[in-house]
Parts: sequence; structure tokens; C-alpha cells
Amino acid sequence: MNRDYSLSEIATYLEAELRGNSEARITGLSSLSSATGGDLSFLSNAKYVDQLTNCQAGAVMLVAEQASNYAGNCLVLDNPYAGYAKISAWFDTAPEHSPEVHPSAVVDTTAVIAGDTYIGPNVVIEAGVRIGAGCSLAANSFVGARSALGEGCSIGPNVTIYHDVVIGSHVRIHSGTVIGSDGFGFAPAGSDGWHKIHQLGGVEIGNKVEIGACCAIDRGAIDDTIIGDNVILDNHIHLAHNVIVGDNTAMAAGVIIAGSSTIGRNCTFAGASGAIGHLSICDNVHLTVCTLVTKNITEPGSYSSGMIPTAPSLAWKKNALRFGQLDVMARRLKTLEKKS
Amino acid sequence: MNRDYSLSEIATYLEAELRGNSEARITGLSSLSSATGGDLSFLSNAKYVDQLTNCQAGAVMLVAEQASNYAGNCLVLDNPYAGYAKISAWFDTAPEHSPEVHPSAVVDTTAVIAGDTYIGPNVVIEAGVRIGAGCSLAANSFVGARSALGEGCSIGPNVTIYHDVVIGSHVRIHSGTVIGSDGFGFAPAGSDGWHKIHQLGGVEIGNKVEIGACCAIDRGAIDDTIIGDNVILDNHIHLAHNVIVGDNTAMAAGVIIAGSSTIGRNCTFAGASGAIGHLSICDNVHLTVCTLVTKNITEPGSYSSGMIPTAPSLAWKKNALRFGQLDVMARRLKTLEKKS
Amino acid sequence: MNRDYSLSEIATYLEAELRGNSEARITGLSSLSSATGGDLSFLSNAKYVDQLTNCQAGAVMLVAEQASNYAGNCLVLDNPYAGYAKISAWFDTAPEHSPEVHPSAVVDTTAVIAGDTYIGPNVVIEAGVRIGAGCSLAANSFVGARSALGEGCSIGPNVTIYHDVVIGSHVRIHSGTVIGSDGFGFAPAGSDGWHKIHQLGGVEIGNKVEIGACCAIDRGAIDDTIIGDNVILDNHIHLAHNVIVGDNTAMAAGVIIAGSSTIGRNCTFAGASGAIGHLSICDNVHLTVCTLVTKNITEPGSYSSGMIPTAPSLAWKKNALRFGQLDVMARRLKTLEKKS
Repeated sequence: MNRDYSLSEIATYLEAELRGNSEARITGLSSLSSATGGDLSFLSNAKYVDQLTNCQAGAVMLVAEQASNYAGNCLVLDNPYAGYAKISAWFDTAPEHSPEVHPSAVVDTTAVIAGDTYIGPNVVIEAGVRIGAGCSLAANSFVGARSALGEGCSIGPNVTIYHDVVIGSHVRIHSGTVIGSDGFGFAPAGSDGWHKIHQLGGVEIGNKVEIGACCAIDRGAIDDTIIGDNVILDNHIHLAHNVIVGDNTAMAAGVIIAGSSTIGRNCTFAGASGAIGHLSICDNVHLTVCTLVTKNITEPGSYSSGMIPTAPSLAWKKNALRFGQLDVMARRLKTLEKKS
Repeated sequence: MNRDYSLSEIATYLEAELRGNSEARITGLSSLSSATGGDLSFLSNAKYVDQLTNCQAGAVMLVAEQASNYAGNCLVLDNPYAGYAKISAWFDTAPEHSPEVHPSAVVDTTAVIAGDTYIGPNVVIEAGVRIGAGCSLAANSFVGARSALGEGCSIGPNVTIYHDVVIGSHVRIHSGTVIGSDGFGFAPAGSDGWHKIHQLGGVEIGNKVEIGACCAIDRGAIDDTIIGDNVILDNHIHLAHNVIVGDNTAMAAGVIIAGSSTIGRNCTFAGASGAIGHLSICDNVHLTVCTLVTKNITEPGSYSSGMIPTAPSLAWKKNALRFGQLDVMARRLKTLEKKS
Repeated sequence: MNRDYSLSEIATYLEAELRGNSEARITGLSSLSSATGGDLSFLSNAKYVDQLTNCQAGAVMLVAEQASNYAGNCLVLDNPYAGYAKISAWFDTAPEHSPEVHPSAVVDTTAVIAGDTYIGPNVVIEAGVRIGAGCSLAANSFVGARSALGEGCSIGPNVTIYHDVVIGSHVRIHSGTVIGSDGFGFAPAGSDGWHKIHQLGGVEIGNKVEIGACCAIDRGAIDDTIIGDNVILDNHIHLAHNVIVGDNTAMAAGVIIAGSSTIGRNCTFAGASGAIGHLSICDNVHLTVCTLVTKNITEPGSYSSGMIPTAPSLAWKKNALRFGQLDVMARRLKTLEKKS
């Protein structure tokens, strides 16, 4: 698994200007502070510029302005952070499996598996499934009837994709995640509890989507649940039935979106944020950590709720008890103002 | 997978009064606004009555009062929403597997599997397990020693049911869910960290329960964790050891109930709500989204905490900082009142 | 699965002083209030001392001070709760599998599996994996390339351990949990969405760690994500890339720790608490339920946010609306004070 590239190979791939020894060997990536001789590092935030002084990296990716102050090997880039992202793929140690359908996999005879695809041990693929070229489905995953994956998808071990799910190309899904489970739809049935509303829609996922571990993306009630292109989802995310997520939107761990809500494009939702059902959030909205959206958001911008500064527990408790008096306090304040 | 029923068949099943063309063919369900000729739709909320005017549905389920204003085919029902729920089963495209024990399944010789049951690929069933008639256990699921399922249960792919779990009839469990994992019980052991308290209880689940994806229902410490009949649980729900959930209770996604708490019957908990341990919540309690219960609730009704209206982040921050001054503000207010 | 021990055997194991009938047969554990003749019970909290009066247990573990008031069989211990924890292992009914590699398991020929280890049905073990002596890997679990487990680990069904994860000895991981999924690292790519930052680090887990069900522990971006010795994690916990958790720390269900945050030793985080990224929490910190940490914590102690007393929904709503006026109220209060 050892990687060893010349600095010039990397410069060519990143379309970067190379200053210094083009034959320097790069065997890893590291931060400025812990890099050693074989490491490529990067300076993406000017506040770390002092770390260049004693940096032991074999080479550093940086912008032209910083490069002029740096004596070591460097790659000059408009966006060093993007350069780090791109070159990180060359150092990924995730095993790449040769194309095969493992003998222990159970693949229905009506499934169509394109060439150059890896179907790992104990993977189960039901009738009518279509898998595009260059996909990898790791061990113990499941793809239900008639679902389809585009090209170059990477499905982790123990992933569940239910029936009638349509996934684009270059989609990556991590372990434990479930796509197409039933939406939570029930009609009250009095003392009998609940009538189940069978969930007849599917899930549509665009291209270049990444979905983390232990997420649950429910199928739609009648129409589909939809995730746009380039959407990135962290772990433990719940998207209920008929949620729509616009292109390029990012959601951090623990986000919960209730049923039939529509999220715009280019949104960034911090961890444990979410939205109640049947509402709409426009493009370019940022939610800070733990924010719960309870009304439509129609203007781009950053929105918050939920986050109140941490305090020692005794102090917190005193103030928290006062929360229950807020309305009364406001009225008393008004009374005083009238008197004054 | 194409479905095609006459309106009269559907009317008979729903015990509905049919007005219009009894031979109309119904091939799908849809909302009033997007229905086309072969679709059956429903009007369950009077505020959508205007959508009847241009509705293109093949037939509509509605109450008698609305039916008199509608010229198209219709099914008259006391509860059109329940009618929609019941008939949705006829249009469910989830694959129905023929009864078999798939050759790749690993079933202990002492397990008892009733007839008419589907045991999918790579399912693992340990010693002493009992599976009732008409069950379906999808691919890659696991049932541990001595656990029992009643009749007509549907267990999704990649579900884990640990040992000594007793599940009633017509229970549905979605992928990624874990039933009977150890409760979180540890005794402090000083510098050695923690002594594990082995969890000796099981889990009992009633009839007609539905459990969503990626839930974790822990086994009891000594006695069992108990879920009553007709309970419905959405995704990502955590029920700790020895939680008891009463009949007909519904919990939306992300609910967390800590150990040994007892939840009544007919409760409805909105998303991301929860309760700390060792408390009791009576029947007919509704929790709004994100509510955390920290004391017993003894009166039916709707309870809240956690939800504060979303605001632009700058405005939120100003107010959130004042939270830490609440107790002081209350005292200052009182001082002013004394003076005035 | 019936257990039957003499009280003297148990006393010897626990190094307890036995008072009463040393040949009493103990067949189960129970609480003081529900124990019957064959049960061993314990009194660990003085407030339950009255339950000794009518206790039907075959024997009770208690401290010397309480033992003098109890006429029945008893085991005198400095710490009866720890005694209960230790002896609970003798009554655990979890099936113990004989050492074997199940024929349906798919084990790479380069993996090294020590003796006395159980590899269950459909377990998949990739190239270069090392499994220590006395481990148990239950059905349908996955261990990726080059990962290593120490001795005596217990891995539940449907667990996923990605590549290059190093796990110590006597570690227990419950079903649905994912170790080593990619951290959530992406560089903005304008209208192309995001450049994935491949996650090159691994996960290191110490000895005697227990991880509950449905947790996701991400691998590091460059360096490793690290979990110390004796750490205990409940269900549905998310540890992002490069989180470090110190020895002996306990986290209850639903805790979320964002990327690169460092948690000290001997911390106890209550349910649904968490921390944003790139911060540090010192040793011996307790977080109450739902607390979100947004700044470094440098002093041991109990900290809170998030928890505000539950109220009837109408009362809550009135007060919650006032939250948005808090800053203005504070200013008005100040104005009044100046006038008075």
C-alpha cells in the first residue's frame, strides 16, 4: 500500500506551478506541523503561515503570495485546499477490489451488472436490478428489486438499498445506511392503533452524492424522495418521505428532516439541525448547530435556534428555571415602563 | 408490477358507497393535484376541497358531504384517509417472496420455522428460534438463540434480532435496526474504568408493531424491555433498557428514551423528543418536536420544551447570550418593582 | 441455559463475607422487590433499605452496616453494586459459540486468526486482518483489509469494521455499528459541488472498550481517530474524524462529537449531548442531557445547556416567543434602572 510519487507527477495532475526539486519523492500527506520529508502538506489558511518557518514537509501546496516567502519545494495553486482534496485520492488506502462477482453473492438472474464491477461476498441483488460500469458493492450489502445504480458507485459493507431506488453515477454510500425504508405514514385507527399507509414512492439520488454511515433515507409515500446532484450527507442523517434536497447541499451529522419538506440548493446544515415537515427552505441557507426550522425560510442567510452558551450546571439551572417566567417578566417590564 | 383494479372491487374492499362508473380501472394512487385518469385519489382535509374542481383522477375517496359537489367517480367513506391507508396495500410494489428457505441461509437445526415463510439469502437463525407462519425475513438478517416471532412478521434486510427476544404477530422491522443489544449498564470501577453489568433481560414486542430503520431497542438489565401492541416507531429511535412503551403509542424519528422510563398508551412523540430515565409519562401525552421530559407527566395533554423560533443567526446570538443573565434580570426586575 | 450456583461459590468469586446458608442455591438475579427464593439481590442505595424487610430473595449483597439488620442469607461487600456487576456475567444467557470458522464465512487467506476464536456465518474478513485469541465475530459482520483486533473481543452481528482499524483487547461492539467510515471532509468546488477529501487516517480503539448499537466512528482525515482504554459508548453515538476520547470516559445514547475535538479522561456525557469541532474538553467533565459544548472546557465540573424544564405546550409557546425579545428586554430593563 506504499505510495510514492514524484512532485512533478503531482504538479501535473493538479495543474500547479512547481518550484524546487521536481524529482522530490512524495509518500504521504500531512499537516504543516507534523509533516516529515516525504510528506506533501498545504497552507490553506493564512493564520497558519508561521508554521511554514520550521516546516519539514517534502513540499507544500500554497498560493503564490505565500510561496514567495517559502524556500522549500512547493506547488503554487489558486486553491491549495482543493489541491489537497484532489491529491488525497492518490493516498487513499481503501482496498480496491478487482472486478468480479464473488461466488457467495446472490444475484438474481434478471439483474444486469455492467462490466468492471465488484460485487463482494454475500451481497444480495434482487430481480431487475441494474448496476452500471465500475461500481463496487462491498460485502453483505443488499439491493432490492428493480433498483438501479449508475456508473462508478461505491457502496460500503452492510448497506441496504430497498426496491425501486434510482441512484446516479459516482455515488458513495457508507455502511449501515438504509435507502428506501418505508416513510412513517399511518392513519389513526382508534382503538386498533394505526392503519399503515403503504409507501408507494421510491428514492431518486443524483450524481456525485456521498452519504455517510447509519443514515436512513425513506422512500416516498406516493411520489419519490429526491436527493439532487453533489449532495453530501454525514452520518446518522434522517430524511423522511418525500423530502427534496437541492444540488450541492451539505448536511452534517445527526440532521433530521421531517416529511415533505423541500431544502434548496447550496445549503449547509450544521450538526443536529433539522426541519419539521411540509416546509420549504430556499437556496443558500446555512443552519448553525442544533437549529430547528419550524417555518419556511425564503431569504438566503444564516439561521439559528437551539444553541445557547454552555454554563456550569448550577448557573444554567437557575436561568433555565427563569425561562418559564419569561412571558410574565415581559409583562411586568411593560407595567413598570408605563409607570415610569 | 402493474396493478389494475375495478373501482367496484375497491369499493367492496373498503365498504364504500360507489358513485359513478363501477367498471372504471384504477392503476395507481395519487394526490388530488397530480392524479391522472387511472388514479384513485382522496380528499381527507376540507381545506383542499377546491382541488376537486379540476381534479383529473379516475375516482376520489371523500365524505358524503363533499361527494354531493363532485361530478366524477367517487367512493363515499366516513374516513377517506383511512380508506387511502387501507387501499395503499394493494399498490405496494415491495417484492413478495415465495415461501422458501434460501439455500444460503444458515438455520440451526433446532429452529422451528412455520410454513409459508420466506427466509432470504444469508439470513442466520440460531438455535431454538421459533418463526411463525407467513413471516418474511429478508437478506442478511440475523435472529439470535431462542428468539421468537409470531405470524406474518416482515423483517427487512440487515436487521439484527439478538437472543431471547419475543416478537408478536404482524410486526414489521426495517433495515439497520437492532433489537436486544445490551443496555448501557456499568458500575464504576475506579481507575479500572467500569464493570460491565451483563444484561440478563430480553425484549418483548407486541402485535402489529412497526419499527423503522436504524433503531436500537436494548434488552433489559434483569427484567425485559417492553413494547406494547400497535406501537409505531420511526427511524433512528433509541429505547434504553427496561423502557416500557404502552399500546398504540407513536414516536417520530430520533426519539431517545433513557433507561427504565415508562411511556403510556396512545402517546404521540414528535421528532427528536425524549425522556430521561426512571420516569413515567401517562397515557395520551403529546410531545412537540425536540421536547425533553425530565419529570413525571401525570396529566394527558401536549407538552413542550426545546423548540424556540428560528431567527437570523446574529439576532439569535444576541438573545442567546442574554439567556445567561436571565436570573439576574429577574432579580433586577423585582428590585425595580419594589422601588416603583 | 439454567444457571445454578451455591452461595458459597459466589461468595468466593466476589471475595465476599457469607452470612447464612452457604449451600443456598442461586439460579438468578433480581431486584429486592421482585426477588424470589432462588434469586440473589443487592442493596446498593440506602434509600431502598426498607425493601429488605419483606425481601424474598435467596440472598442479598449488601454492606456490613446493613447486613447487621438483615436476618436472611447475605454476602457482605464494600461495594454491592460492583458485586452485582461482576456476578451478572455468570447469569448472562447470550449464546457462547464454540471456536470455529463457520464454513460460510469468507476469510482471506492472508488473514491471521488466532486459536479459540469464533467466526460466525457469513462473516467477511479481508486481506491482512489479524484477529487475536478468544474473539467472537458474530454473523454477517465485516472486517476490512489490515484491521486488527486484540484478544477476547466480542463483535455483534452486522457490525462493520472498515480497513486499517486497530482495536485493543476485550472490546465489545454491538450490532449495526460502523467503525472507520470516512470522515466528512470536503473542499468546496463551486458549481461542481464538493471535492472529496479522502480520509487517510484510521481508527485506534483501546482495551476494554464497549461500543453500543448503531454507532458511527469515522476514520481520521490524515491522523487517526482515537478512543482510549475503558471507554464506554451507548447507542447511536457519532464520533467524527480525528476525535480523541480519553480513558474511562462514558457517553450515553445519541452523543455527537464533531471533528478534531479532544475529550478528556473520566468524562461522563449524558444522552444527546455533544460538542462542536476543534475544541478541547478537559478530564472529569460531566455534561447534562442535551448539552452542546461550543467552547473549550478547561475546568473539571458539571456543565449544561439545552435542558429547560418541560411545560404545557401553550405556556411553553408564550415563553419561547419572548426568547426573541430577550436582548431588547435587557436593554429596556437597563433604561428603567437608570431612570429609577
